[in-house]
Amino acid sequence: MSDIFSALRDAVGEQAIRTGAAINPKHFTDWTRHAPAQPLAVVFARSTEQVAAVLRLCNAHGQPVVPQGGMTGLAGGAIPGTADIVVSLEQMAGIEEIDPAAATMTVLAGTPLQVIQEAAREAGFEFGLDLGARGSCQIGGNIATNAGGTRVIQSGMTRDLVLGLEVVLADGTVLSSLNKMIKNNTGYDLKQLFIGSEGTLGVITRAVLRLQPQRTSCQTALCALPDYDTAVRFLHQLRRHLGGDVSAFELMWPSFFELGVSLTRDRKSPFAERHPLYALVEQRGFAEQADAERFGAALSEALEAGWLSDAVLAQSGSEANALWAIRECTAEFPQRLAPINFDISLPIGKIGAFADECQRLFDAQWGPHLSLFFGHIGDSNLHVTVDGNTVPGVTHEAVDQLVYSLLRRYGGSVSAEHGIGLLKREFLPYSRTAEELACMRRIKQALDPNGILNPGKLFE
Amino acid sequence: MSDIFSALRDAVGEQAIRTGAAINPKHFTDWTRHAPAQPLAVVFARSTEQVAAVLRLCNAHGQPVVPQGGMTGLAGGAIPGTADIVVSLEQMAGIEEIDPAAATMTVLAGTPLQVIQEAAREAGFEFGLDLGARGSCQIGGNIATNAGGTRVIQSGMTRDLVLGLEVVLADGTVLSSLNKMIKNNTGYDLKQLFIGSEGTLGVITRAVLRLQPQRTSCQTALCALPDYDTAVRFLHQLRRHLGGDVSAFELMWPSFFELGVSLTRDRKSPFAERHPLYALVEQRGFAEQADAERFGAALSEALEAGWLSDAVLAQSGSEANALWAIRECTAEFPQRLAPINFDISLPIGKIGAFADECQRLFDAQWGPHLSLFFGHIGDSNLHVTVDGNTVPGVTHEAVDQLVYSLLRRYGGSVSAEHGIGLLKREFLPYSRTAEELACMRRIKQALDPNGILNPGKLFE
Repeated sequence: MSDIFSALRDAVGEQAIRTGAAINPKHFTDWTRHAPAQPLAVVFARSTEQVAAVLRLCNAHGQPVVPQGGMTGLAGGAIPGTADIVVSLEQMAGIEEIDPAAATMTVLAGTPLQVIQEAAREAGFEFGLDLGARGSCQIGGNIATNAGGTRVIQSGMTRDLVLGLEVVLADGTVLSSLNKMIKNNTGYDLKQLFIGSEGTLGVITRAVLRLQPQRTSCQTALCALPDYDTAVRFLHQLRRHLGGDVSAFELMWPSFFELGVSLTRDRKSPFAERHPLYALVEQRGFAEQADAERFGAALSEALEAGWLSDAVLAQSGSEANALWAIRECTAEFPQRLAPINFDISLPIGKIGAFADECQRLFDAQWGPHLSLFFGHIGDSNLHVTVDGNTVPGVTHEAVDQLVYSLLRRYGGSVSAEHGIGLLKREFLPYSRTAEELACMRRIKQALDPNGILNPGKLFE
Repeated sequence: MSDIFSALRDAVGEQAIRTGAAINPKHFTDWTRHAPAQPLAVVFARSTEQVAAVLRLCNAHGQPVVPQGGMTGLAGGAIPGTADIVVSLEQMAGIEEIDPAAATMTVLAGTPLQVIQEAAREAGFEFGLDLGARGSCQIGGNIATNAGGTRVIQSGMTRDLVLGLEVVLADGTVLSSLNKMIKNNTGYDLKQLFIGSEGTLGVITRAVLRLQPQRTSCQTALCALPDYDTAVRFLHQLRRHLGGDVSAFELMWPSFFELGVSLTRDRKSPFAERHPLYALVEQRGFAEQADAERFGAALSEALEAGWLSDAVLAQSGSEANALWAIRECTAEFPQRLAPINFDISLPIGKIGAFADECQRLFDAQWGPHLSLFFGHIGDSNLHVTVDGNTVPGVTHEAVDQLVYSLLRRYGGSVSAEHGIGLLKREFLPYSRTAEELACMRRIKQALDPNGILNPGKLFE
């Protein structure tokens, strides 16, 4: 052990290594606060060469390595064990290049998402990834977990925003694929392997990101709907009118909506009556007036077709913010509830039936209680929250079993955007076949034969 | 050998196997007509189970297998050797499901692209892949080669249009990942491995395709430009006005444009003068009138800014077709020229300089000759054609060396959309590092340890 530490010191310098009480506890766990543990050491790499040197050493010694970014994960994917060495990318931060012709940005893995968003904006572009942790999360972690967030319906997942990657493999090999081209069919698209593999196949050190033209107009409406199938019909009708300009379709079930309203400043629903479902819809485009006309026409058509029971069209940015405030009540959950949260996905046509059956299951099991459903349904993503305060004695494990067993019957996915990490490992076989899992292990074995990279994450 | 044939007959039936003179010569080579060879046998699989049985047998016997689709490839990726067994997917054709809520279509691998396009249209959607071979190519081959085509700027590559895959591995394992969800972060995204791997890692048997809302409006213009940098500025300006509705940006250099004009019916350029560059631009959207206004506004702004030297806006479908006819002169190349074609890509900002230097290199080497440049530059894709008839004694190999050596210096890709197959294998190291190639081999070794799948394609 002293061997490897002295070699590590030679590779990265004394000051780049923290051990024992000198380790900041932020490295012990992620935003889940699950199973905090003090690792053997934290190494702050400052270059790809240093990451390579550290991995080469650890691989030679069979020493487990846990890559860490901003520690904002929600599945435990970056939580270390007490015998692990953490490689933190936080000191490898910065934007190396913006190429306006290619519409790309080359960044170091430790760059915070918000820094990237702002730099894109300054250059007249936008970066399509956005999520609540934007100020703390790092792009390397976003890529390693294939982060989703609030713009997926318009911009896709992180995977869709990455053109090139530089990755260090377990044995210290530097795989440089800093591609800037949209079309490039030269053999296997290796970067795809590392995106979403949660640090188990390599350590991401650099990325070429795809930028989009900056959208300048925004329309927002809150719509009341009679049932789920009509909501899906409305979603597709919006797309037939607005194409890729549909930037949000947030569907809220009544208990979620009513809690959301109760947490706004004036606690007043925009609607006189209660409705079975509410959709917050948004269009982001490039021409304020023409977009407003197209948006208005789409809503009018839906109203005339009888798909909408009611609708409120925001007339200003502050009115739009007031509508979003209802949906963003999720930010208050940790303070107001004892939230047991689920991030799942299903084929879009099945989300309504699943939500209904899940609600009935909860009711039958627990009687009166508070559970909340909302979904980015255009992305096939449903979030379910059970307020543990309203179900005496309930455990996260018990609700997991209920939700994931039902989900399995529906052919859904146990992780839409958060990943598997440690926390969903047990349920991965609910969504992937034995053959798929065996194939994943073959890949893992091929790239990390000593199993040093983020051991225990994704699979045992 | 007789062993394996009798086992194959048991697995798929006598009638599903052709040998010797009974093999249709269409199985000998692809659209390149390169190195035709009569394989040992062609097996027409009619189910995933049959493909699995065939691969299991061949794997056990170390028997090389070449998967074949519509044989429209342009890199030799499906050409058999005389000791190979071909597995043809052509009898596994058909659309199994259209899910309108999920906006997906589930198809068998042997389904021709055009059948898919038409079925999507009938269901009120469109499938974003289109290419000249649409009537003959099969979706399995499109996926295996990550086909590009004419709509990439709007819809992405085939990779972006695939949500799920069913694949048979070399050992006969059926990997069923028929995912319909946009967000699904449950472990490695295995389908990405097979997309674009040219049949070297598995045989694709089924796919879940992503459909898009049907676009109903189309605007077209031909623009004359003073130089390449202005063309890039114009491209980005169009995107800032029209976002994802930009559906074509086809840049033509003068010799290409002039040949194109000379092959149209009236042989008359739409412009009074010659110009350094010509861009055929197209917008496809959802609202004829509003789209026409946005398109017109974008063109006016570009004219006022002095970026366009001239522009012709098509006033009807037939006028648009007449403009496209110039660009589509490529269809006449095989009859009119002795074309030596290149399908390459470069970072968008470098395409202009590359094209100029390539032209100078050709001129210096050969003196007066005909070479043609045009590019889907929004996709970073450049096509170069040398008319061998105008360069006495020139060989494809000699031009390959010239073009790819220059391209290597520019950091470009030797295959934008056609793949590597047999024909570009020698040049793959020009675009990928030794570390990337070694990593590809590790993956190949992990999934096909006996090397039976499409041996010799991509790498030796």
